[in-house]
Amino acid sequence: MIVDATETDWPRIEQLAADAGSFGEQEMEALGAVWEEYILLGAEDSGYEFLVDQEGDSARGFICYGPRDLADGVHDLYYLAVDPAARRQGVGRRLLNAAEAEAREAGARMMIAESSSTRHAPGRSLCQASGYEIEAAIKDFYSVGDDLLILVKRF
Amino acid sequence: MIVDATETDWPRIEQLAADAGSFGEQEMEALGAVWEEYILLGAEDSGYEFLVDQEGDSARGFICYGPRDLADGVHDLYYLAVDPAARRQGVGRRLLNAAEAEAREAGARMMIAESSSTRHAPGRSLCQASGYEIEAAIKDFYSVGDDLLILVKRF
Repeated sequence: MIVDATETDWPRIEQLAADAGSFGEQEMEALGAVWEEYILLGAEDSGYEFLVDQEGDSARGFICYGPRDLADGVHDLYYLAVDPAARRQGVGRRLLNAAEAEAREAGARMMIAESSSTRHAPGRSLCQASGYEIEAAIKDFYSVGDDLLILVKRF
Repeated sequence: MIVDATETDWPRIEQLAADAGSFGEQEMEALGAVWEEYILLGAEDSGYEFLVDQEGDSARGFICYGPRDLADGVHDLYYLAVDPAARRQGVGRRLLNAAEAEAREAGARMMIAESSSTRHAPGRSLCQASGYEIEAAIKDFYSVGDDLLILVKRF
């Protein structure tokens, strides 16, 4: 069941992100900062929404997304992680569908996922299977040899 | 003379940005928020640096830039504005050169300017004359018919 994340979900979300193995140290720190804003200010004022796929007591995956500043109708997909033990069960796809549905309801014309060419392969595969296309790239963005790939899904 | 902006420069900076005619309402609001962080936290902790081209008592132009989160050696050029009465005197170019020199000293491998295809033509022309190239674009990003153009200068 996909639900809004609440305060007690943090240890599990942090664990899911770490287990995904896709996020670097700075991205893990940034995730913590984003979570704090979400909990302190709420989704609307922080601009960040967290959803979890709840199964019994535990979350099997989470997604974090929100509207882009200065653009009209653009949402960013910031983080997506699925428990490695729950892969290939459609968890990621359900989270993505739920986030896209909420974003569209909020007026999104497109969803954008910024992705590292070396680190985010599982999330990128899922996005591409779900209709995202690499529309732009900046070579050596994250570091030399690690490009920024900008995936876009238009609604 | 290019110097770090100080607290009393704000009314002039706001005026320069408004007079440039390139920035929308949301961008002007964001500029105010960025300025507050710069003044409250300083350049290093806020991640924003403001330089002004000082001529006598008044600034003829300003530039705002800073390091991009989660990337190693990437600086963003956020705002650049020159007094319309002081155009074609090299003010913009000097500000850009000074920002690039400081960014390179801080380890920047590239400078990135995100630009609207409909609103930021003067700044974009200046950047392109200064070695920036449009390396990526996202159609209809700001709004339908208003694309995101990502200009990059590599050092």
